[in-house]
Amino acid sequence: MKITQIIERPIRLESNISNAFVNFSEHTVSLVAIVTDRRIANKPVVGLSFNSIGRYAQSGILRDRMIPRLMGAAPESLLQDDGKLFSPEKVLACVLKNEKPGGHGDRAQAASALELAVWDLNAKLLDEPAAHTIAKHFGTRFSPKVSVYAAGGYYYPGEDGKQLRRELEQYKAKGFDRFKMKIGGASLGEDIRRIESALHVAGAGENLAVDANGRLSLEQALAYARGLESYKLMWLEEAGDPLDFELNRALANAYSGPLATGENLFSHQDVKNLVLFGGARPQLDIFQMDSGLSYGITEYARMLRELESRGFSRAQAFPHGGQLLALHAVAGLGLGGCEVYPNIFQPLGGFGDDTVVENGMVEVSDAPGFGLEQKSSLAQEFARMFH
Amino acid sequence: MKITQIIERPIRLESNISNAFVNFSEHTVSLVAIVTDRRIANKPVVGLSFNSIGRYAQSGILRDRMIPRLMGAAPESLLQDDGKLFSPEKVLACVLKNEKPGGHGDRAQAASALELAVWDLNAKLLDEPAAHTIAKHFGTRFSPKVSVYAAGGYYYPGEDGKQLRRELEQYKAKGFDRFKMKIGGASLGEDIRRIESALHVAGAGENLAVDANGRLSLEQALAYARGLESYKLMWLEEAGDPLDFELNRALANAYSGPLATGENLFSHQDVKNLVLFGGARPQLDIFQMDSGLSYGITEYARMLRELESRGFSRAQAFPHGGQLLALHAVAGLGLGGCEVYPNIFQPLGGFGDDTVVENGMVEVSDAPGFGLEQKSSLAQEFARMFH
Repeated sequence: MKITQIIERPIRLESNISNAFVNFSEHTVSLVAIVTDRRIANKPVVGLSFNSIGRYAQSGILRDRMIPRLMGAAPESLLQDDGKLFSPEKVLACVLKNEKPGGHGDRAQAASALELAVWDLNAKLLDEPAAHTIAKHFGTRFSPKVSVYAAGGYYYPGEDGKQLRRELEQYKAKGFDRFKMKIGGASLGEDIRRIESALHVAGAGENLAVDANGRLSLEQALAYARGLESYKLMWLEEAGDPLDFELNRALANAYSGPLATGENLFSHQDVKNLVLFGGARPQLDIFQMDSGLSYGITEYARMLRELESRGFSRAQAFPHGGQLLALHAVAGLGLGGCEVYPNIFQPLGGFGDDTVVENGMVEVSDAPGFGLEQKSSLAQEFARMFH
Repeated sequence: MKITQIIERPIRLESNISNAFVNFSEHTVSLVAIVTDRRIANKPVVGLSFNSIGRYAQSGILRDRMIPRLMGAAPESLLQDDGKLFSPEKVLACVLKNEKPGGHGDRAQAASALELAVWDLNAKLLDEPAAHTIAKHFGTRFSPKVSVYAAGGYYYPGEDGKQLRRELEQYKAKGFDRFKMKIGGASLGEDIRRIESALHVAGAGENLAVDANGRLSLEQALAYARGLESYKLMWLEEAGDPLDFELNRALANAYSGPLATGENLFSHQDVKNLVLFGGARPQLDIFQMDSGLSYGITEYARMLRELESRGFSRAQAFPHGGQLLALHAVAGLGLGGCEVYPNIFQPLGGFGDDTVVENGMVEVSDAPGFGLEQKSSLAQEFARMFH
């Protein structure tokens, strides 16, 4: 069994929005297809994937460094011992050959696309959802239903709270019962008024998370902590710079509710530093690392080991991403749940044309692999790679 | 004054060697040229640079994200307030527009090439060495002579110590009096025999540093610490993973000599974490961050602020790199010194065709900018960008 071709194609996402930190209008993602010499129903088995959502396409690193390493490797060196499936661990080690330690940025996103395509490939070889393949590989229990929440809660010009409520009501009508909104792009006073508007829809603080996208200084973060404490929110997300472990620790000392962070940490080493030095609290705080941004499921499993070996639970893990790759990781590894950005980041966001959200839960489909072909707009984009 | 064109060209380095972690045979670097509408001696003023040595060319990130941002910016938005020079801070902010926090990897190397080209450009507009321009910008004192040491000390097949001694003797004959050699690629016992061979050339432990290139586990690192303690070496470099601050702290508690690290930390935030959590010791340990790998001189100055605000001295800073960009940073910012890899990493390594090393010191030339045109093999590579 061998890889015959690897195709990368950057696409632009539909997401002309801003968070507190960046504008997404120039946002791109790399689609990846790993083509093999195995055939099912007279067609080559192809592993599909992409490097999550939220950072950038990685055409340069994939084409200049990683794809040549994979295509240059001895085919059997990329297989599991029985020769029947590809080895995600060996593929990851191959794409990182001659890469120095440290510097977990764009490279981590490039490697993710390839490593995740291997999970799609293996699941298709086994004719099962990727979540099954992941669960079997790591000896975990597959959970067919996954808890999801709707992320959004944007700023609107001349906002008086009505548009924000209307946005969250749309999510509620779709079946969501937990929500996340942006903060940190206005004054604390204005953000508190927005939170109070949102609570009319969310019902209780435990159904509403707030996300500062890493914008706040320590002083600002502490002021938000004091101002938000009494609302008993679902969580306060990325108050400060994702690598400012000192800030996170000070905030954990000052705020009794859950803090969430991790979507911008891309290695198990960074996660280890967060839990050792960032004041993270077992049974309380939330970890949002995204295997689609951080070297794939193989490295994500190492991150879970860092957490679990220090008294944290995988139920505290809610991966960033809001797409099918994250859904299968949550279902396969038994994580807490995952986010969705309804309507935006298309064609990658969300879980499939027919997916229904019911009481804040989503069921993993029976489609083989990650089921990316079940999203017709996305399937079209992948189809264009083969012309 | 405006930028009229930005050219990027990846080149392959001559360096068919390995350290304990990677083989450099596929090693590439991005050359960058920023062309302006200003003319001196009837030729456009062009800022030249590259993204140091040791990681990879960044054609993708530069061409897809950063160069379009710079070319799309209003020309005056990239200038210092008086309009006479480009602003490295504004150029860096522009190339990082819509980049999320965290993830300081390949992106940091791409940004470095552009930010450093601005220093070359400004120095040429002022007709002075870049080290002068840097010193004036930051209010530091320009040091015309820089302390350097020869890095190398490779493994040789069937090594009995003779070839290692011969290598270091060659460096001594060129005027070096301090040396650095590789460890961690053999057993501790064999490495100690190699160190004793090297000491025949270095004379005393204070003239010999050892570099494990991030390869050792905590247990191995502690064993090396015990084995090396009595040699009172110049420093023990990158024993473990560059982000393993827990390991670094344990090692600092166990080893009384200087520890060196930082060449694989690419942001001031990572440096802050090293000094807060990694057990770094004022007046003792060595910091090797390289502005050519970490967003340029602007971010390097932030790293120095992290160090100096916590009791460390810039005399403890010995940047990685071994090329002209690092030499001017050391001379302009008054750092401790820098490394050189004699003979390898050509055409980028070293300081110019006529540069003389005397008693372990190198003098900064009078050429304007970084003086990259003074290295004829490198000047040729840049010249090819304009055909």
